[in-house]
Amino acid sequence: MKISAKKPFPVADVRRFLEPGPIVLLSSAHEGKLNVMTAGWHMIMGQEPSLVGCFVWDRNHSYEMIRKSKECVINLPTVAMASTVVRIGNCSGRDVDKFAELGLTAVFGEHVSAPRIAECHASFDCRLVDTSLIRKYSLFVFEVVAANVAKAPKFPKTIHYRGDGLFMVAGPTVARYRKYFLPGNL
Amino acid sequence: MKISAKKPFPVADVRRFLEPGPIVLLSSAHEGKLNVMTAGWHMIMGQEPSLVGCFVWDRNHSYEMIRKSKECVINLPTVAMASTVVRIGNCSGRDVDKFAELGLTAVFGEHVSAPRIAECHASFDCRLVDTSLIRKYSLFVFEVVAANVAKAPKFPKTIHYRGDGLFMVAGPTVARYRKYFLPGNL
Repeated sequence: MKISAKKPFPVADVRRFLEPGPIVLLSSAHEGKLNVMTAGWHMIMGQEPSLVGCFVWDRNHSYEMIRKSKECVINLPTVAMASTVVRIGNCSGRDVDKFAELGLTAVFGEHVSAPRIAECHASFDCRLVDTSLIRKYSLFVFEVVAANVAKAPKFPKTIHYRGDGLFMVAGPTVARYRKYFLPGNL
Repeated sequence: MKISAKKPFPVADVRRFLEPGPIVLLSSAHEGKLNVMTAGWHMIMGQEPSLVGCFVWDRNHSYEMIRKSKECVINLPTVAMASTVVRIGNCSGRDVDKFAELGLTAVFGEHVSAPRIAECHASFDCRLVDTSLIRKYSLFVFEVVAANVAKAPKFPKTIHYRGDGLFMVAGPTVARYRKYFLPGNL
C-alpha cells in the first residue's frame, strides 16, 4: 500500500497520535533477528521527556527482545493494514519471520537498532528507560527519541481494539468546543 | 440527555470500553465534596484483577481527593457530552462545584464513596490499589471493583483526544478479520 513520504515530527507531540488509543505495532531487533507485535495497552506518561508506557506480556516473543536490546519502534498502522495487524498478533516470532512472511518493509534509522515499518503512518523510535515495572506489571517505560510521520493525511484512520475480534476505526475529528479551552490545556 | 438504563457488567471486560482509548471522567468524593476531571492518559494494566492505570497531574484538584480517599469512578462520556467534557477539563474543583455548575447527576453505588455520573454511558467503580508510582509518574493504579454500562448502544460514540482542542469521534466497528484470530487472542 502507498504511504506518503515521512517527515520528522516533534517527539513531545507524539501524544497527538497515541493518546486517542490506537493499536500499535512494536518492532524490535535482537541478535540479528527482527520481530513485531501488536499492542493495545499503552499510555502517554509524559511529554518532556516524551514517555510512553507499554504492556508487553512475558509470553510474547518480543518481551525478551525488547528487554535485552532496550529499544523498540512504536509504529502506527491504519485500517488499510487491519488484516496484517491481526495476522501479526496471531503468530509468534518464535515460529515465523513476520517481516518476511507478512511483506513488511523494515527501515532503519540512526537512533535505535529496531526497524521502522514503512507501511505504517508513523514510527516512534524508543529507548527503554525504566525496567523497574516490568516484573510486577509487564510495563515497559519508553522514551521516544525520534518520530517520523507521513505528511498526509493529517488524521489517519487508526484502528482501536474493542476485544472479541472487533476494531473501532477512527471517525471524524471535531473541534467545536474550542472557546471553552484554557490556553494551557490545548 | 437520555441514557438507556444501566446494567452490571463484568469487571474483567472493562477493556472493551477503555482499550480503544477514550477520554474518561474521573469522579471523586472527599470530606463531603465531589469533583470530576477529564483524563486521556490511561491504560488497561490487567484483567483479573481488573487494573487500570491513570495519569493524574498533581496540579489537578482531584489529585489529593483521589489519593486521600483511595477511590474514584472512571466514567465514559460520549460525543453528546463533548462540550461538557471540555468544560470539566477547563475549570477547577478548587473554584467550582462542577456537578452543580455543569448539571451532572451524581449516583452513589455501594462499592466506593465516589459518585457515578448518570449522564455517562458507563461507570467503573475503582479502588486505588497501588500508590507507589504516584510520586515518580503521577500514575494511579486502580482496581475496578464494579462496572455499570448502558444497555444500548453496544458501541457508544466515545471521544478520543487528539490534542490542540480536537477530538476524534469513534467511527465504525469492523470485524472482517476474525478468521485470522487464534481463539485465545479474542
